[in-house]
Amino acid sequence: MEDQDRYQRGWEKLKEVDGEAGERVIGSLADIAPDFARYLIEFPFGDIYCRPGLDLKSREIAVVAALTALGNAAPQLRVHINGALNVGCTRQEVVEVIMQMAVYAGFPAALNGMFAAKEVFKERDESGQN
Amino acid sequence: MEDQDRYQRGWEKLKEVDGEAGERVIGSLADIAPDFARYLIEFPFGDIYCRPGLDLKSREIAVVAALTALGNAAPQLRVHINGALNVGCTRQEVVEVIMQMAVYAGFPAALNGMFAAKEVFKERDESGQN
Amino acid sequence: MEDQDRYQRGWEKLKEVDGEAGERVIGSLADIAPDFARYLIEFPFGDIYCRPGLDLKSREIAVVAALTALGNAAPQLRVHINGALNVGCTRQEVVEVIMQMAVYAGFPAALNGMFAAKEVFKERDESGQN
Amino acid sequence: MEDQDRYQRGWEKLKEVDGEAGERVIGSLADIAPDFARYLIEFPFGDIYCRPGLDLKSREIAVVAALTALGNAAPQLRVHINGALNVGCTRQEVVEVIMQMAVYAGFPAALNGMFAAKEVFKERDESGQN
Amino acid sequence: MEDQDRYQRGWEKLKEVDGEAGERVIGSLADIAPDFARYLIEFPFGDIYCRPGLDLKSREIAVVAALTALGNAAPQLRVHINGALNVGCTRQEVVEVIMQMAVYAGFPAALNGMFAAKEVFKERDESGQN
Amino acid sequence: MEDQDRYQRGWEKLKEVDGEAGERVIGSLADIAPDFARYLIEFPFGDIYCRPGLDLKSREIAVVAALTALGNAAPQLRVHINGALNVGCTRQEVVEVIMQMAVYAGFPAALNGMFAAKEVFKERDESGQN
Repeated sequence: MEDQDRYQRGWEKLKEVDGEAGERVIGSLADIAPDFARYLIEFPFGDIYCRPGLDLKSREIAVVAALTALGNAAPQLRVHINGALNVGCTRQEVVEVIMQMAVYAGFPAALNGMFAAKEVFKERDESGQN
Repeated sequence: MEDQDRYQRGWEKLKEVDGEAGERVIGSLADIAPDFARYLIEFPFGDIYCRPGLDLKSREIAVVAALTALGNAAPQLRVHINGALNVGCTRQEVVEVIMQMAVYAGFPAALNGMFAAKEVFKERDESGQN
Repeated sequence: MEDQDRYQRGWEKLKEVDGEAGERVIGSLADIAPDFARYLIEFPFGDIYCRPGLDLKSREIAVVAALTALGNAAPQLRVHINGALNVGCTRQEVVEVIMQMAVYAGFPAALNGMFAAKEVFKERDESGQN
Repeated sequence: MEDQDRYQRGWEKLKEVDGEAGERVIGSLADIAPDFARYLIEFPFGDIYCRPGLDLKSREIAVVAALTALGNAAPQLRVHINGALNVGCTRQEVVEVIMQMAVYAGFPAALNGMFAAKEVFKERDESGQN
Repeated sequence: MEDQDRYQRGWEKLKEVDGEAGERVIGSLADIAPDFARYLIEFPFGDIYCRPGLDLKSREIAVVAALTALGNAAPQLRVHINGALNVGCTRQEVVEVIMQMAVYAGFPAALNGMFAAKEVFKERDESGQN
Repeated sequence: MEDQDRYQRGWEKLKEVDGEAGERVIGSLADIAPDFARYLIEFPFGDIYCRPGLDLKSREIAVVAALTALGNAAPQLRVHINGALNVGCTRQEVVEVIMQMAVYAGFPAALNGMFAAKEVFKERDESGQN
């Protein structure tokens, strides 16, 4: 498989999962690190997200869980709460994943995840999304 | 609902998810912090794991993802790789969740998660488990 | 002991430690995860903070230390700097706990803790609190 | 104040808090980074631990809390569980500090802290210490 | 060597590495923890940064890498991106260090580092710095 | 550029930086996640390590710094202390990078890094390496 395929496939997957927010991230890297933007499309989205063996919903559940637990990447957590909803998670499922993190990473991490979800849900309400 | 119910329900759920490893953790707390053993049964398992809104498989995917990403709780990661398999995840799904963490927490975290999975799979092979 | 007792006792303890900031956190969860608000009252405050064996001042010293060291939960750190002062720590004691973290979690973590304390002290000056 | 004073004062304080374990750490640095051993005596122990404004017991409570929460420095956690007991904390207080961390850093961090405490208590039992 | 020397030497080094941003940090500590400001000058800058055996450029590469990877000290990361440029790193070198962190701490950490670099580069453009 | 090139180039770079330890990691993934082994060769080594704009020595300084600071990936830290020495860092430079982390991630992280370096140096002494 040639790199052109990875890029194209990754770009489609990035748009499917992250939507406009993903495109904005790529755009914002154009003037400082365009190669990094390309890697971000190729490796996470062209290689990993396209793999069989785990459905997209479960991948996003894993990512929302990890970013809530780490607690040091707020913008990416918001992107992936949107991503989880974009690929078929319900809001309730997102809330449950975040709540589960109170047990494994503490209440502050879960609280900050919950407030991120609240913001994302409000934005989606305003633009008529699920 | 009375606390006796939470405890009983949590104890059943702990055995369902974590199996004997969970019981050993509870047992090992008996002489140093028996109340903490009780909280561990009541809150994570009696309250959180029993909630509707997210299936057990997804809860374990979230936990394996978070513990792989945090990278500082190796014994609990092994317990929950087992837990994921106990509640219906395939080995391939566990491997994919851990691989996904390379993107969100770096390759060292994913590598250490993968080596933990390898150990767990070997132990389960030896005892004839899925 | 019934759950109603845990909730009531937790609610009283939450108000004693975190004051209005704690009540605001609970209120902000009402529309997204009311059960999580309830757990937050019941487990941390109804179970843990009410335990004998460690005085409230020492519990808050432990929490300010941990949140300063983790460095990924800024809003909760401010709540608990207030909490430490609410339960009898002096401002100097809070400053010393944060400074101690320079040794165990690095100067950036301690600096960000110190700036959080500075904001909290200013707010308390403005409302005439200790 | 001259550096000789900082070093001497730090050395005394290191022995008071960390006991023989502290001396072993210093000794093990002699062949790889003797200056780092000197800084470890001078800054944490000569400067920070000797400060007024927070008693030694509270300093050790803060350190046990932070190292339990961070979860990535197991040897140092054991040294400071000993340290807490050396400067007057009861075993019950140490257990309570660690349990409190379940709320702020998750159950895995608290469990690993608890198992560290269990080991330390056993060693101290065997050598007849409090 | 007397402490007065450490302080003076540290102060010069702080200005060389961190420039005005470093002086502002010191100034902002004056009313809450002046001793901590002094330690910050003496230990990191008077002791560590002045050591032979590793050039200043490499020290700043190490610091930018670590703060990007930890992801929980955004203000200090910006100060040290400036610091790296102040002591001779090129912007490209800073970008490469941050990109390298995608491998070791994940893409979110690297992305947030990249956006911090973008801000710093813009500020330096506006004030005519390299 | 085709993927075959990335893989070949990555494999050469992996051997240059990590030596036999890198090959062992790749080998140990063969039965559990062979694709992950391939990604590890392609992305970190085929894409990132081969980039111009930052010399290999500086890349390894960045990695040793980050892994010391994170403190949750001990095996990878040892691999990259070796890596730093393999690509031209002196032992003194490695020690200085680790010592620098005491300032940015705390003394426990730096101590554990120092003990890892001590082990690596001993192994290299025994096999006659620099």
